[in-house]
Parts: sequence; C-alpha cells; structure tokens
Amino acid sequence: MAGFRAKQSLRVWLKMLRTTTIIEKRVRAYLQAEFGSTLPRFDVLSALYRESTPITMSQLTDRLLVSNGNLTGLVNRLVDDGLISRESDPEDRRAQRVVLIDRGREAFCEMAERHEALVNAQFAAMSDEDMATLLRLATRLDSALRDIPTPKEVQ
Amino acid sequence: MAGFRAKQSLRVWLKMLRTTTIIEKRVRAYLQAEFGSTLPRFDVLSALYRESTPITMSQLTDRLLVSNGNLTGLVNRLVDDGLISRESDPEDRRAQRVVLIDRGREAFCEMAERHEALVNAQFAAMSDEDMATLLRLATRLDSALRDIPTPKEVQ
Repeated sequence: MAGFRAKQSLRVWLKMLRTTTIIEKRVRAYLQAEFGSTLPRFDVLSALYRESTPITMSQLTDRLLVSNGNLTGLVNRLVDDGLISRESDPEDRRAQRVVLIDRGREAFCEMAERHEALVNAQFAAMSDEDMATLLRLATRLDSALRDIPTPKEVQ
Repeated sequence: MAGFRAKQSLRVWLKMLRTTTIIEKRVRAYLQAEFGSTLPRFDVLSALYRESTPITMSQLTDRLLVSNGNLTGLVNRLVDDGLISRESDPEDRRAQRVVLIDRGREAFCEMAERHEALVNAQFAAMSDEDMATLLRLATRLDSALRDIPTPKEVQ
C-alpha cells in the first residue's frame, strides 16, 4: 500500500497547492486593487500590529508569513508613508527597531477587515463542520512539519 | 456568529498558507539541490508529460500549476537541454507547439519519483483517514472556488 499512500499524498498536495494558489492570487489582486498594497506590505503591517513594542528587523523577518526579497526597501516605504517608525536599538546602536504608529494601525485595521471578509467569502461553500475539520487537520500537519528534516538535512 | 465564522476562515486560511508555503519551499530546495531544477521547470515537464501530442504555448500556460514569468526562456532552455522539442503549429504557422521527447520523459520520471517521495514524507504524521478527509475537503474547496467571483468582479 506504500504506492497508494504516496499517490494519495501527491493528490492531497496538488489540491492544497491549487486551492492555496487561487486564494492567494485573489487576496493579492484585491489588496492591490482596493488599497494599492502588496501582500508583503500587508504581511509586515500585520506582523507589527501583533507587537506591543518595537522589534528588530531580524525579529520582523521571523514573524513574516510571506517571504520578502527586499524587506529594507519595503520598510523604508512604510516609514516614508508615515505608517511605521524606526529607531536605533538601545541595546545595539547598529541595529534598528521598527514599530507601527497610529496612522499605520488605522490603515492596517481597515485592510485587515476587508482581507478577513474576502478570505471568508472564499470558504462560503464549506460547512462549519468542514471548517473545524480543516483547521484540525491543517494544525496537525503544521505541527508535524516542524519535526521533519528539510531537504538539505535529508541528503 | 458571522464574526466567529470569519475568524475561523482566517485561522483555516493562515494554517493552509503556512503549511503549503513550508512544503513548497522544501520541494523547491530539494529539486534545486538534487537535480539543479527549479519548480517551474518541473511543472512544465509535468504538464507536457501528461500530454500525448504536442501542445501550443498557450495550452501549456493553462496547464501550469505554478505561475511563470518567463515561460519562453524556460522552454528555450528545455529545448537546448534536449528534453523537449518545438515545432511550428501546422494550423497556425506563427504559433509553436512543444512536446516532451524521450530524454525529457526519462528526466521527468526520475524527478517525479523523488518528488513524490519527498511530498509523501511531509504527510507522514497524518493517518490514512486524515488524508482521505483532507483530500475530500480540499476537493470540495477547489470546486467551490471556481464559482466565486474574483476580486475585480466583486467590485
């Protein structure tokens, strides 16, 4: 049955990849059309929103969901737009810390509300039971993935 | 309960996005490390593998799972590497058709076998029942997503 299981994993994976890609594309298109914002920008604001105190760029990187090639450039633009502020880290003068300021908090809340509604609309056909099951299984998968070595360690 | 449902959708979505991102990163790293191949390249070979006759570039685009900014360049390299061949479309001389050739078929099969094993390993902690449930729910979500208007149509 090893062959069946491997094929089943592939089927599950391709469906997960397909559905996630579709929803992600829609979220990106929506953020762009309605707020002129990219998904990485929303992701940075979201990460800072969850913090009550300034965090370093390295801590910010760890908290991001979507990978970002040019985080410094993105942060520069958010500072220029008056949504976040940047200061030297008192414990390490060479390091910088960033924090969401009031205008950024307001801008994020407005986007987050619409983001939540759009995401919710994508799952409209799923029953409450389906959603609870999906959450349980995805949470189990997420925990399990932490224990699996990454490709470089496998070899 | 509308508020609970929207928050639940967001939780499900964030777990889906997180798990899919982790698995996709590992698949990319693995293909790169072991075959010097990118995910878009694997995706093109996979799409052509499923076809028995040559298809146009436009048909190829429709069959891809992963978006690709420079499909022409990718196809050129696959031709140079002797994995696919390209010919003029007999029905439209300006259009090109591509097809997998024997060496490409062999290269793809080797990669696909390892790809399947790697993907399967990511789901090792899930029971057969979990996998059947995940497939059923992801398939339901996939069908439902086709019926939901995209952001531009929403506005």
